[in-house]
Amino acid sequence: MKNFEFYSPTRVIFGSNILDNLGETAKRFGTKAMFVYGRSSIKKSGLHEKVLTLLKSSGISVTEYSGVKPNPEVAHAKRGVLKAIKSNIEVVIAVGGGSVIDESKAIAAGACYTGDLWDLYTQKAPVKKALPVIAVQTLPATSSETNLVSVLTNTETNEKFGLRSPLIAPKVSFLDPTLTYTIPLKYTAYASFDIMSHLLEGYFTSTDSFAPVQEGFVEGTVRAVMAGFERIQKDPHDWDGRSAIMWAGALAWNGLCNAGVEGAVIPNHMLEHPLSAVYDIAHGAGLAVIFPAWLKYRKESLTKRILLFGKRILQINEEITGIPENKACDKIIDRFSSWIHASGAPLSLHEAGIDNPNIPELVKQARTLSKLWNIPGYTDTDLEAIYRSAL
Amino acid sequence: MKNFEFYSPTRVIFGSNILDNLGETAKRFGTKAMFVYGRSSIKKSGLHEKVLTLLKSSGISVTEYSGVKPNPEVAHAKRGVLKAIKSNIEVVIAVGGGSVIDESKAIAAGACYTGDLWDLYTQKAPVKKALPVIAVQTLPATSSETNLVSVLTNTETNEKFGLRSPLIAPKVSFLDPTLTYTIPLKYTAYASFDIMSHLLEGYFTSTDSFAPVQEGFVEGTVRAVMAGFERIQKDPHDWDGRSAIMWAGALAWNGLCNAGVEGAVIPNHMLEHPLSAVYDIAHGAGLAVIFPAWLKYRKESLTKRILLFGKRILQINEEITGIPENKACDKIIDRFSSWIHASGAPLSLHEAGIDNPNIPELVKQARTLSKLWNIPGYTDTDLEAIYRSAL
Repeated sequence: MKNFEFYSPTRVIFGSNILDNLGETAKRFGTKAMFVYGRSSIKKSGLHEKVLTLLKSSGISVTEYSGVKPNPEVAHAKRGVLKAIKSNIEVVIAVGGGSVIDESKAIAAGACYTGDLWDLYTQKAPVKKALPVIAVQTLPATSSETNLVSVLTNTETNEKFGLRSPLIAPKVSFLDPTLTYTIPLKYTAYASFDIMSHLLEGYFTSTDSFAPVQEGFVEGTVRAVMAGFERIQKDPHDWDGRSAIMWAGALAWNGLCNAGVEGAVIPNHMLEHPLSAVYDIAHGAGLAVIFPAWLKYRKESLTKRILLFGKRILQINEEITGIPENKACDKIIDRFSSWIHASGAPLSLHEAGIDNPNIPELVKQARTLSKLWNIPGYTDTDLEAIYRSAL
Repeated sequence: MKNFEFYSPTRVIFGSNILDNLGETAKRFGTKAMFVYGRSSIKKSGLHEKVLTLLKSSGISVTEYSGVKPNPEVAHAKRGVLKAIKSNIEVVIAVGGGSVIDESKAIAAGACYTGDLWDLYTQKAPVKKALPVIAVQTLPATSSETNLVSVLTNTETNEKFGLRSPLIAPKVSFLDPTLTYTIPLKYTAYASFDIMSHLLEGYFTSTDSFAPVQEGFVEGTVRAVMAGFERIQKDPHDWDGRSAIMWAGALAWNGLCNAGVEGAVIPNHMLEHPLSAVYDIAHGAGLAVIFPAWLKYRKESLTKRILLFGKRILQINEEITGIPENKACDKIIDRFSSWIHASGAPLSLHEAGIDNPNIPELVKQARTLSKLWNIPGYTDTDLEAIYRSAL
């Protein structure tokens, strides 16, 4: 283990019928709220109306800001910042998935910064102040509801960058699993795979010989997501399955799984971010395509970790005992791919709707991220080969 | 899973040579600090001198308050409160184990309360304000460095009660595993068992049919503590072993393991608190005595959970397959007892130095705690029988 900092200061309120406290909770931070959301889904479900009623009945004036996209765009966030400043907003209420929460964090920080919002994402300027954010999570996947991170896409420069600051962590997050009952199975699969990827990046890239707290956390939580998803496949309204995925989603990327883990890096995110930046596919779908391709490409150097994954997470010990390690790894990756396929997520760029991708552009962006995130060991040839193997 | 709140707002700084930032960190909260510690051990190790130098070189005036006992006493805490008020203290720096941090939290809350400090512990009055606390953990065990809880003993009334408030959570906790290198093996064993008990209380008492995130977390972290302790038995300066136990100690009782777990209660703490309140033994030693006795007494109702514990945590699947469940449970409890014995912790009241205990008094106090903590299902006869079986 190496030195680390861990900080996840969000108060999580988890369960059914918890939203009744939204108004009073928000009021502690201010009476002028910006209510940020995506498109029509929360209107169809009635959540939009409910949130408005709850806030207004607590004496909060509400400025709505909608249209956040699945890969939220800096241009849209900038317009939100202007609106927040103009309306003297005191608290930002994010109602949606990771994208809505990420953009709400951007608006919260941008409203207290006089320069160009994108500066905060390219690390040209630090965040010094931010409005308080309250999150109502409806699509658990990125842990944005409990972490210090916001990721935005710049469509002008085709870049997707993250901002990290304790000041943008939500003050309070409301996690009601019943709000996720209506997520279509396909998107539940993407979200589940997103959560699993966050957990598994450091697990596979760790060079630690002994970090059992972190390993145990990853193994248990990945198994929980898989088991939870399998329950939801049978019954989308399965309370326990939805609860397990929602709670796993809040913890997977809040810093716990990689805290102090030597060597932990996020190559699959390095490879995926360019995909969703350029082709606007769901992040979880992109990860589902990239992860098995990456595992196959890195099989030799990852042998020990892939075997652990097979034994402790997929729990197929009997099938892989007594065969050469190389073959055992193939079997494990195949089994993992089958699980992804059965979940409904894509396994190739073609299945994700991307034919003839602009591989040089993808490689260029992945290269930029490899520098930004300190991910060693990938030549342009490696990057190209992984993208090609995922066609 | 059921509804819950989870809140652990402490910033954790973990690793070696991290204390260099103590002064600057403290200064953000004030320049008049109370430095709270126990007895002579931090003087012998040089940590006392180091902390003083670090604080003073950052321009912080330091008021020392020492003499915190392993089961910290409200009378001592009250004197600390008076001293803090008199010295206009702005920030409390706790340097020690859970006891020192617990008492520092008490002083922080008491300094902002005009009534009797014990009122806050008997729930006669709520905490409305507290001074900021910064913790330097030297004996990981209770998660006091990351949680909202403080436990004090009242020697006048022979009571041991806990106070829970977000306002007393440390703002920052410094966790340096090298500070734990000199903890004698016996006390490392007590601490390890304390950590394991915190994780296992809810695991054994859970009535949840599906809470895999929480179960996985407990299973992985208990295995980590056992493996970490076994490394320390071979080499007390084992960085990875000490790191695993320190990190497990910070997470085990911060609310994660029982978050949302149906039925999770803490009967072993109900049974142990009276022991350490009346006989002033180490909390971890008391738990080591109580836990196997409790498991044996509750074997019939806990069969399913004991089998899980044997399979997933002790990992003795082969030994318990194909034999009657009743016998398998005996084997698992025996194996657990052997591990405790080998660790150096006591397995009976006699081994803990308590002969002819005042069982009616212990039962009376456990009864009080059962009401305070809502632990159903224990008649006085049950309580007495468990204490007697631990003689």
